Amino acid sequence: MSPWPDTWLLDRLGNDLPIIQAPMAGVGGVDLAAAVCAAGGVGSLPCAMLDADTARAQVGMVRQQAAGPLNLNFFCHTPSPPDVEREQVWRESLGPYYAELGVDPSAVAAAPGRAPFDAAMCEVVEQTRPEMVSFHFGLPDESLLDRVFATGTLVVSSATTVTEARWLEARGCHAVIAQGAEAGGHRGVFLESDISTQVGTFALVPQIADAVSIPVIATGGIADGRGIAAAFVLGAAAVQLGTVYLRCPESLTPPLHLAALEKAGDDSTALTNLFSGRPARGVVNRVMRELGPMSSRAPAFPTAGGALAPLKAAAEARGDHGFSSLWAGQAAALAQPLPAAELTANLAADARDRLRTLGAG
Amino acid sequence: MSPWPDTWLLDRLGNDLPIIQAPMAGVGGVDLAAAVCAAGGVGSLPCAMLDADTARAQVGMVRQQAAGPLNLNFFCHTPSPPDVEREQVWRESLGPYYAELGVDPSAVAAAPGRAPFDAAMCEVVEQTRPEMVSFHFGLPDESLLDRVFATGTLVVSSATTVTEARWLEARGCHAVIAQGAEAGGHRGVFLESDISTQVGTFALVPQIADAVSIPVIATGGIADGRGIAAAFVLGAAAVQLGTVYLRCPESLTPPLHLAALEKAGDDSTALTNLFSGRPARGVVNRVMRELGPMSSRAPAFPTAGGALAPLKAAAEARGDHGFSSLWAGQAAALAQPLPAAELTANLAADARDRLRTLGAG
Repeated sequence: MSPWPDTWLLDRLGNDLPIIQAPMAGVGGVDLAAAVCAAGGVGSLPCAMLDADTARAQVGMVRQQAAGPLNLNFFCHTPSPPDVEREQVWRESLGPYYAELGVDPSAVAAAPGRAPFDAAMCEVVEQTRPEMVSFHFGLPDESLLDRVFATGTLVVSSATTVTEARWLEARGCHAVIAQGAEAGGHRGVFLESDISTQVGTFALVPQIADAVSIPVIATGGIADGRGIAAAFVLGAAAVQLGTVYLRCPESLTPPLHLAALEKAGDDSTALTNLFSGRPARGVVNRVMRELGPMSSRAPAFPTAGGALAPLKAAAEARGDHGFSSLWAGQAAALAQPLPAAELTANLAADARDRLRTLGAG
Repeated sequence: MSPWPDTWLLDRLGNDLPIIQAPMAGVGGVDLAAAVCAAGGVGSLPCAMLDADTARAQVGMVRQQAAGPLNLNFFCHTPSPPDVEREQVWRESLGPYYAELGVDPSAVAAAPGRAPFDAAMCEVVEQTRPEMVSFHFGLPDESLLDRVFATGTLVVSSATTVTEARWLEARGCHAVIAQGAEAGGHRGVFLESDISTQVGTFALVPQIADAVSIPVIATGGIADGRGIAAAFVLGAAAVQLGTVYLRCPESLTPPLHLAALEKAGDDSTALTNLFSGRPARGVVNRVMRELGPMSSRAPAFPTAGGALAPLKAAAEARGDHGFSSLWAGQAAALAQPLPAAELTANLAADARDRLRTLGAG
């Protein structure tokens, strides 16, 4: 008999643990995904900031290091056309910072690229056959989505509300990731732009579980065995954890980001659109305090970060993370800085103990 | 052996169920508190909008109807001095609404009274000897607090962050209510004014449980047996539920508020300061959409509601709740409209089943 209250994911993918490592574009990568796969979880490769060739190569590298199910993650935003006027207003807001840090604003480059899922990436999925594909910000258009379904992979996407979960179920998703407001990084929100009504994990998971007939993967604020066990109690069939993996040696988390995570408390983070144009949760720093955390001046996703990039570079050179995106969820303080395989095994063991103890209460 | 993973509250108060009915000033009252007491939970009387004589009389009425532990709840805000200029700016913001609804702004009365705990209320506690006293917005000053402790009652207060929980423990609270961001009504926040960093229940409960050595009462987004069971899994020793009791026939919830609750979905609520001057969660309505939900123009607590009161009255007379405070948490949609005793019994039975089933998994 399985020690897990729900074995949907294990039955579907043949692995041992109902724990998915969240993709985390920019800081997740080959070594982290491989370590989680090796531990019996589901490793994830974030592909939103990769080109197709790099994504393909990374899948190959994970496969060489570890067996077990692998998830490829893609963004599905519709890129906004350039808005010269808004970009100008935004750069003017940053003017005093350019002056202070000695940055030449005319030298500001384009924003870090975050490309939506496209035909080239679809070919990567068709060729590399990942066991799972997760989308963020909705779903790709129907012709591409049909090709992904045709590979036989497990297809999931993020919902931040019941309405989004129903939308994903209606389009054939095999499961839905219920992303509570506690989650670090980008909100997957795609049907609504108002973040004041975003729902916490505790309220979101049971309401989505009631609203859809597909399995629910809980994410947001889950960082230890208590959280994993509680997610099952609320109706989840599996869990996805991100922030807890940021301090693993296999992650590509930059040193200043790690330093912020070490000090983070429960109320150290906020949702901000300053770094990309879309709301994402990170540790509050100088630019968030002074210009936001949410600002109507920030250009549309994913371009807002371009004008900030040279400030980030100049500040980081001085050991200052005041202009860096320090993505983190609200349970960052619960994370243990351990190798990813050991961390995954510990999380699973703690969750199983917690579930067993309760039943015996 | 108790079916509950933690029996602290039951050992302390001698009742059957670790379920506290949240006070809910304005809509909770004698009948609701008595029904919950009769069912084995802890009934609460909200005293923030009562004078001392009325509070004393209400305790007597509950005692006549039911045995079992009773909680009296008090606010501990420091009333702000009147700010004529800010009040003027606020009324000007509302000008178009006064015109539309035919309200004479010069006839605007004072805000609904919400008085902080004082010597008169302290006498009520000393005379009526409630088994529990809960505070919101911090604690009263030391001389009053010492008198409350001297009665031997169980003293608790709300924390919205780990820092607030530690502050309450350091001042001798016997337990702390961890109020997650999902909770309906006023945030208990008292050490911080920035709501962008408020923490969800799922992340808050385990972090407070780790940070303090006193028991943690979880609240916010808990509305069924799954939520109660999950709160215990996260480290809570008891739970407090508010929104779920709003639709009980024993509550004083106005008809338009009930209508809003019946339709509420997971993402129907937001934090707003428009109705009182302090952030509180309610169903989003016209004035929240058009002026907020958070506005720097709203006067300080508890006076903001005064200028809105005639608009509320005029709109409600037309069956419109666009200017009413419709307090509700993010799990309002999970609430069953049942008599309070039956609801309490069902919640407890469902939670016990959930805990038992998991352990057998």
